[in-house]
Amino acid sequence: MKWSIAEASFSMQSDKLTFERSYPPIERKLTGFSPATLQAYLDGEFVETRNLVKSIITRPEFRHFEGPDLHEYRRQVLIWLRTISDAGLGRLFLPPELGGEANLRKLMAVVEVLSFHDGSLLIKLGVQFGLFGGSIHQLGTGYHHQKYLPKATACQLFGGFAMTEIGHGSNVQALETTAVYDSEHRDFIINSPSHSSGKTFIGNAAVDGQFMVVFAQLHIGAANHGVHAFVVPIRDETGQPLPGVTIEDNGLKLGLNGVDNGRIWFQNTRVPKAELLNRFAEVTDDGQYRSEIKSNNSRFFTMIGTLVNGRITMALAANNMAKSALTIAIRYAARRRQFGGGVQEMLVLDYPATQRRLMPLLANAYAFDFAVKRLARIREQSRGRGTSARSIESLAAAIKAFSTWTAIHTIQVCRESCGGEGYMFVNRFAALKADADIFTTFEGDNTVLMQLVAKNLLGELKDQLKEMNPGRIARFFLDQRLRALKKRFIGLTADTASLLNPEQQLAHFRFRESTLLLRSGGAFRRLTRQKDMDAYSAFSRLQPELLELAEAYAERQVLESFIEAVAHVPEQTLQPPLRKLGDLFALYHLERHKGWFLENGFMPGKRARAITSQVTRLCQEVRQDAVALVDAFGIPDQCLGAPIALG
Amino acid sequence: MKWSIAEASFSMQSDKLTFERSYPPIERKLTGFSPATLQAYLDGEFVETRNLVKSIITRPEFRHFEGPDLHEYRRQVLIWLRTISDAGLGRLFLPPELGGEANLRKLMAVVEVLSFHDGSLLIKLGVQFGLFGGSIHQLGTGYHHQKYLPKATACQLFGGFAMTEIGHGSNVQALETTAVYDSEHRDFIINSPSHSSGKTFIGNAAVDGQFMVVFAQLHIGAANHGVHAFVVPIRDETGQPLPGVTIEDNGLKLGLNGVDNGRIWFQNTRVPKAELLNRFAEVTDDGQYRSEIKSNNSRFFTMIGTLVNGRITMALAANNMAKSALTIAIRYAARRRQFGGGVQEMLVLDYPATQRRLMPLLANAYAFDFAVKRLARIREQSRGRGTSARSIESLAAAIKAFSTWTAIHTIQVCRESCGGEGYMFVNRFAALKADADIFTTFEGDNTVLMQLVAKNLLGELKDQLKEMNPGRIARFFLDQRLRALKKRFIGLTADTASLLNPEQQLAHFRFRESTLLLRSGGAFRRLTRQKDMDAYSAFSRLQPELLELAEAYAERQVLESFIEAVAHVPEQTLQPPLRKLGDLFALYHLERHKGWFLENGFMPGKRARAITSQVTRLCQEVRQDAVALVDAFGIPDQCLGAPIALG
Repeated sequence: MKWSIAEASFSMQSDKLTFERSYPPIERKLTGFSPATLQAYLDGEFVETRNLVKSIITRPEFRHFEGPDLHEYRRQVLIWLRTISDAGLGRLFLPPELGGEANLRKLMAVVEVLSFHDGSLLIKLGVQFGLFGGSIHQLGTGYHHQKYLPKATACQLFGGFAMTEIGHGSNVQALETTAVYDSEHRDFIINSPSHSSGKTFIGNAAVDGQFMVVFAQLHIGAANHGVHAFVVPIRDETGQPLPGVTIEDNGLKLGLNGVDNGRIWFQNTRVPKAELLNRFAEVTDDGQYRSEIKSNNSRFFTMIGTLVNGRITMALAANNMAKSALTIAIRYAARRRQFGGGVQEMLVLDYPATQRRLMPLLANAYAFDFAVKRLARIREQSRGRGTSARSIESLAAAIKAFSTWTAIHTIQVCRESCGGEGYMFVNRFAALKADADIFTTFEGDNTVLMQLVAKNLLGELKDQLKEMNPGRIARFFLDQRLRALKKRFIGLTADTASLLNPEQQLAHFRFRESTLLLRSGGAFRRLTRQKDMDAYSAFSRLQPELLELAEAYAERQVLESFIEAVAHVPEQTLQPPLRKLGDLFALYHLERHKGWFLENGFMPGKRARAITSQVTRLCQEVRQDAVALVDAFGIPDQCLGAPIALG
Repeated sequence: MKWSIAEASFSMQSDKLTFERSYPPIERKLTGFSPATLQAYLDGEFVETRNLVKSIITRPEFRHFEGPDLHEYRRQVLIWLRTISDAGLGRLFLPPELGGEANLRKLMAVVEVLSFHDGSLLIKLGVQFGLFGGSIHQLGTGYHHQKYLPKATACQLFGGFAMTEIGHGSNVQALETTAVYDSEHRDFIINSPSHSSGKTFIGNAAVDGQFMVVFAQLHIGAANHGVHAFVVPIRDETGQPLPGVTIEDNGLKLGLNGVDNGRIWFQNTRVPKAELLNRFAEVTDDGQYRSEIKSNNSRFFTMIGTLVNGRITMALAANNMAKSALTIAIRYAARRRQFGGGVQEMLVLDYPATQRRLMPLLANAYAFDFAVKRLARIREQSRGRGTSARSIESLAAAIKAFSTWTAIHTIQVCRESCGGEGYMFVNRFAALKADADIFTTFEGDNTVLMQLVAKNLLGELKDQLKEMNPGRIARFFLDQRLRALKKRFIGLTADTASLLNPEQQLAHFRFRESTLLLRSGGAFRRLTRQKDMDAYSAFSRLQPELLELAEAYAERQVLESFIEAVAHVPEQTLQPPLRKLGDLFALYHLERHKGWFLENGFMPGKRARAITSQVTRLCQEVRQDAVALVDAFGIPDQCLGAPIALG
């Protein structure tokens, strides 16, 4: 039994009836810039690749899946993935030495366009090329690359990334799965010693996957060398689980039901020694463990750190899903009228409450677009160069958490602003909400990621203090506090000009971040000097403050990206609308944090109130360009789908 | 093809494997109170009715629906509804003169328990008994009551509530459907003059409904007397649409897919004159219009006002769905360990970040429980007495909007706090999120409701000023401003005792509300004195301020209810935990608004910081009781469903 999605126009059931057949026109105002020019700036490079992906996902056979049968949905997504791969897009994920490009920014262009279409396809592609292929690429060496990557990127072999266990999702260093080296047979024996050691939520596990990159504790004799990754076959050619491998379907999920997630337990599964992904560690035939990174802990974080691309692409994908939601909500508000006298009722978009609801979220979407793309550039430039892995890890973690939380919020507000129409499946919020929901959890739980950011920031502060003696450190904190007091009212006055000065905005963001860092650092130092207080307990105690610090760091990074993007705009007509969006982003977030500035005496009440007025005014101004600003996202009608947003 | 929901315990696929079979135990601490005693206080009256409903919805055949086929889901929900009705619960909805009770608080007890089970059943029951039956009861007279209500409450006849149209969801006074009186045949001719006049999102329309209470503009000759309600048949006994009636299935929705929502258009559908629901207006045989309420506008709002019970029950239902989410999230956090050294990893509930996330939401759930029940008592007491309809309308609108927005937020945060497990369908958040989502829209869009609240508050202020001359009014506003300035720092100092004094907390809430009211009132007066500024434009211009006012009003009402509930607690052991929750509710919302207090100079920074410390401390304290506090919600295991929360 299939559901037919209601058409935008009314399908008449009696030819005696004559009805108007469509929604009112979307109000499209004259703007001082061309949406196409703006789109070109947002898209930047790889226009051909983008167009290729768009040409595929707008084909009739890529029509949004609308049936209730999830097995059919999974099959559909598999077919879509093969189509994408057959078009040569899988090859992009191959390393250059195998004829591919492995160009992060180009891959991101693919992900970005796919995010406009179907969440399950996006994630299935991410599992196959990004997690399975990517982990083999990053953690393996030539043997693994040649053996698996050409087939994986051509969808001739399906695989997954088996890290998470039932008992350990965030604390993956404590995984229970074991890989015991058997020097006699020169292989590893993989075991799941308990129920809770079962791998879970593993994409491609329930149906399609033949191989898994399995993370397990590497034991040689009595020694545990920590978590390592192994390529492990789980199914034979007929699709049956191999002996010793138990697979369970994770079943129905809140969203992403086109992806076959499953649980896996291993019982004495043997893989040849060569299947250890050995970029960072090797085991000799006779069972000697070799690694250039001596500490298990450092090695683990080095391995995990190479997987940062997943976080970058998920930040991008979440933001692009928010763009779909914004496009639907803003276009609908530009055609829907309700209440108000006059010849016609008032456009919903003309209500200040609507503007206040949607315009800051539109500014966020632009902000994250710039921030994620800058992050990808930094990541690319860092290859083999000096930029520290820790700083990229922090940046990626912060942007991923901030952008995915924002996307969830944005999609929800957009759904509500479309009222009952927003609740209809055909208008796409159902899928956007459901699919994006898990983005705050996977590729690192957001709360855990934000703590990682804070930990790294505290670590950098500690490095700064390392060479000081205790007296010097005490003086350092005192100096910083005095400097903060002197900085009161950071130089900004409440007049419009200074509130709209990007340098002044940034000064506020930086001041907040550095003040929070110094306070947390000081508090951490005081706590750890108490007896019976280890670093972990002190860190846990400070969680609320540290999460605030990480958020401040993320906001500052995003504002910097926005200001940079406005400065580098290639066409002068794009300056005014982007400046307004940038101002709105900055002042909206300052408004959110005004309580903090005020309670610490860092801002006079008059300025806080002026910020609120400016946000309201900017929302009104951005509203004038709003439809053009979402048009510039360049989302194909076929992907957008929602009848309330088309025409 | 059916999905089997994975069992809580691991179903072994190989008898060679032995695994631990369950989640770790839920940590249940000793508390100073008995959860059963607290539950008895929360439940209050009608324990027998609650137990009857619980005994039904925990039967095996009420197991949560888990298939993908939505037509089957609709059939299942229909069977459930019949079972509820057969148990005699439908009769509760009959008016006393027909042998029923129509006791709002007793009905709410039924709704409250049903909210623990399935959203679609709850809403289907609401459509059948509350909207269809309720509108006939409230807007009709003896003839309608006798003709429809016994059959409707026995599920021998299904009906719906056809108000919303494609073109008008919020501004229902501008509905397009017409009912033209034909004095020759003494009947009304119902017509849908356009596509946009089609009724939409109408529960029971797509499949089950035989009759609809249709809202339409009543025309007699050239005169339009405004919107009235008519009972209109839409299907014959075989289930086919009647001639002239066009029905379209609304199709797949984000949630509530067990309810058959549809669209309806009418073409020359005739109903006898007696089918006008004529409590507030009558048409004589010869076409004379009679109503004791002379203005179309007043009559419309009187009619709409009688339907306030729907808002009250939806506020309650949303809060109870939030209770399910909190029960799952808090119990899981009390068994899940992650990170941290020691013999075992640390309980997730012991992290300050978890406490900060979940405990204020637990306080909210208690707060809304008390607030909605107080609202129901006020509503019951007002029957035929002096309490103004407007004040109950405001209160119901405010509590509905505030509680449904809070529920949406609560369910989302609870889902995220359960990580990947929270994303599994079996753990219930999928259904809770999807079903509760529309609560912010139906029974009045929350943003529109909050404006109604603000409008009523401004109206009350205007009544207060009515007898003053302009000079006196100007002085009034000046006096109030001076009084506000004098009230600076409202008398509270930053010491703990005063922050935890309920009267002091309430003073803050009241001060915020009255200050916002006076400011909005003053601004509205200034705006409307400008030329070319009508009241509607002025009101729209002030939307952001008015929404803030309405929120402050809602918060104050809820805090009052909480303080009242703590004061009337029958068992002294319940005082401490409820006092803590009440303090947390008060201080958490003061913390949210600290920016406002600070920027206006109404609070010193020191107090704002003290509030933040108190919130963190209260979260820690409430955490000690948290599992017992959710146990006291009394949600049956079979309803809760989620394996991560059972045992």
